[in-house]
Amino acid sequence: MRLLEEKILKEGKILSGDVLKVDCFLNHQMDVAFLNRLGKEIYEHFKSADINKILTVEASGIGLACLTAQFFDCKVLVGKKHKSLNVSPDVYSAKVYSYTHKTENTIIVSKEYLGKDDKVLIVDDFLANGNACLGLIDIVKQAGGEVKGISCAVEKTYQGGYQKLVNLGIDVYSLARIKKMENGQIEFME
Amino acid sequence: MRLLEEKILKEGKILSGDVLKVDCFLNHQMDVAFLNRLGKEIYEHFKSADINKILTVEASGIGLACLTAQFFDCKVLVGKKHKSLNVSPDVYSAKVYSYTHKTENTIIVSKEYLGKDDKVLIVDDFLANGNACLGLIDIVKQAGGEVKGISCAVEKTYQGGYQKLVNLGIDVYSLARIKKMENGQIEFME
Repeated sequence: MRLLEEKILKEGKILSGDVLKVDCFLNHQMDVAFLNRLGKEIYEHFKSADINKILTVEASGIGLACLTAQFFDCKVLVGKKHKSLNVSPDVYSAKVYSYTHKTENTIIVSKEYLGKDDKVLIVDDFLANGNACLGLIDIVKQAGGEVKGISCAVEKTYQGGYQKLVNLGIDVYSLARIKKMENGQIEFME
Repeated sequence: MRLLEEKILKEGKILSGDVLKVDCFLNHQMDVAFLNRLGKEIYEHFKSADINKILTVEASGIGLACLTAQFFDCKVLVGKKHKSLNVSPDVYSAKVYSYTHKTENTIIVSKEYLGKDDKVLIVDDFLANGNACLGLIDIVKQAGGEVKGISCAVEKTYQGGYQKLVNLGIDVYSLARIKKMENGQIEFME
């Protein structure tokens, strides 16, 4: 069994409504030593992909993104959630609908920090329906850069985001892949 | 001259309205290798303080907090910004007025992750009027823990937060201390 899958079974909780609570180590309280080990796993998978930038979106992916970036020796770019629909001409932007919060956010990234030479790894804590990743991919494309891969900690495979992203020809590498959650039990993908 | 002060002079920009733009390395794009060096400086200052938890608030302090936590070998707890005034009984909360955004936020932290045994270092990117830090101190006190120190990257000393926090008897260690910004020039504290 994989590192993160073990940790989820040991410390995660399933709440009602398909919510996996892993905030004791992943996003509210961050077990930095553990996230560092996840960062190393991500590096091992993508180390030949010539990545020079990691892109995430605020706020819960930032910790994992920073710890992972140390292995790639690259910078992290954080997409900001922007409430207004009016964005400055100095930014790339994409609209992302959040099913969790039932709101549409605009994600923005300054044009200064993303360009055609960037080979980008997208890192986030959760991959569910894939909307956040699709927004980030759109932003990288606007900048003329290249998405070399996507790595999320927890993938809810049954929510379809994984398949959407793979269908775009992108290497998607999640550290725990959940096939289903039922009656308080988690089943991981083989 | 100190590490962060040099970096600010080299890469920071002063915008109108007293805004110091350091988002090329500190909070929008994160220069992880550089933040790691700042984390080491913070550790050198506080290494005898017996710290077992770092507390920050989303989103722009998270990167520095995680990189700093590696030196202390401790976890990071991230205060969440909560829009509603109704908070769950499972969280500690504090109201914080943001002068930047002209809004009052409620910061929340799960009661599960903070308690009387916690010796806390508060880490953030900016220290200006000190309101965010005061909110975090309040939360640590509600939990019965102890604030062992505060370390922010950039301190706008002239905005008074530093003095307020020092007056509470707290060890406040900022990595760059700005005495004034005028006509596009920055003057650091001696």
